[in-house]
Amino acid sequence: MTRILGIDPGSQRTGVGIIDVDGAGKTTHVFHGPLDLLADPAAKTDFPRRLKLLLEGLSGIIDAHRPDEVAIEQVFMARNPDSALKLGQARGAALCAVVMRDLPVHEYAAKEIKLALVGKGGADKVQVQHMVGVMLNLKGKLQADAADALAVAITHAHVRASAKRLGVNVREAWSRK
Amino acid sequence: MTRILGIDPGSQRTGVGIIDVDGAGKTTHVFHGPLDLLADPAAKTDFPRRLKLLLEGLSGIIDAHRPDEVAIEQVFMARNPDSALKLGQARGAALCAVVMRDLPVHEYAAKEIKLALVGKGGADKVQVQHMVGVMLNLKGKLQADAADALAVAITHAHVRASAKRLGVNVREAWSRK
Repeated sequence: MTRILGIDPGSQRTGVGIIDVDGAGKTTHVFHGPLDLLADPAAKTDFPRRLKLLLEGLSGIIDAHRPDEVAIEQVFMARNPDSALKLGQARGAALCAVVMRDLPVHEYAAKEIKLALVGKGGADKVQVQHMVGVMLNLKGKLQADAADALAVAITHAHVRASAKRLGVNVREAWSRK
Repeated sequence: MTRILGIDPGSQRTGVGIIDVDGAGKTTHVFHGPLDLLADPAAKTDFPRRLKLLLEGLSGIIDAHRPDEVAIEQVFMARNPDSALKLGQARGAALCAVVMRDLPVHEYAAKEIKLALVGKGGADKVQVQHMVGVMLNLKGKLQADAADALAVAITHAHVRASAKRLGVNVREAWSRK
């Protein structure tokens, strides 16, 4: 059994999802939720405080659930430099929580996630989020960021299981570009 | 005496500079240097490892020199979304090292730094780096990123001293935008 942490970083809300995957590639839901970085009113104007909430919140979740591997969506192209900078800082803080625990990180493009969940690289976000609920047997509407975090975790679980069947190693994080 | 840490974040090299400032606003050099995030060959392709080197390197410098306050350059406008994302991740990791120690962070625009060091908001980088050497009595050519880190630390020292003379508080980080 391998425990996978999926992260969908954002500077206002960061999605977190954890699943278990067994040797046959079967996935089970463990935990999901958004980290709301604006819940503390002071964090609205104090950006470093937001990064602190993200770092500490994610570190706490890692310590509580002890994942073995981490999956994160590759940022293909941010909309503009300003939003890319904000997203980058949130992503940097999220990765800090992960590298502090020496967990291996795997990155997946949006297209790979859509392909793994819906079977079509051109699927829309809502379809992906719907499939997350179906695949993990979750009732009710999932919060979008948490669903995206679970989606990248499921993608990694599938890639891992396929790689195992084929007897190859999962491609290493960041060396795939 | 107040010890100020200046940081110039970058995903390949992060500049670090530390100065002391006394009650009269007189500055003294303590430490400077670039953190070379590509020194470890594996970090060339492994971006999370680079963030780890940055987080651990900066944390080590903070623990060794125990600064009281931190100054960092405000990113006004990154060149493009891709470089903004890389810079943002480095900046996020640098800020994590700072917020983990609960140090207050002050942000200055490039124009404010040029004004503080050269007296002209339109001064060029080379003039600023030259003035850092003059003001801190450093011999020889300074590495550019380390010089930029010292420059933002000196800027904060000046703003602090002026605020003290005027009997006002230094404007809080991030609430100045």
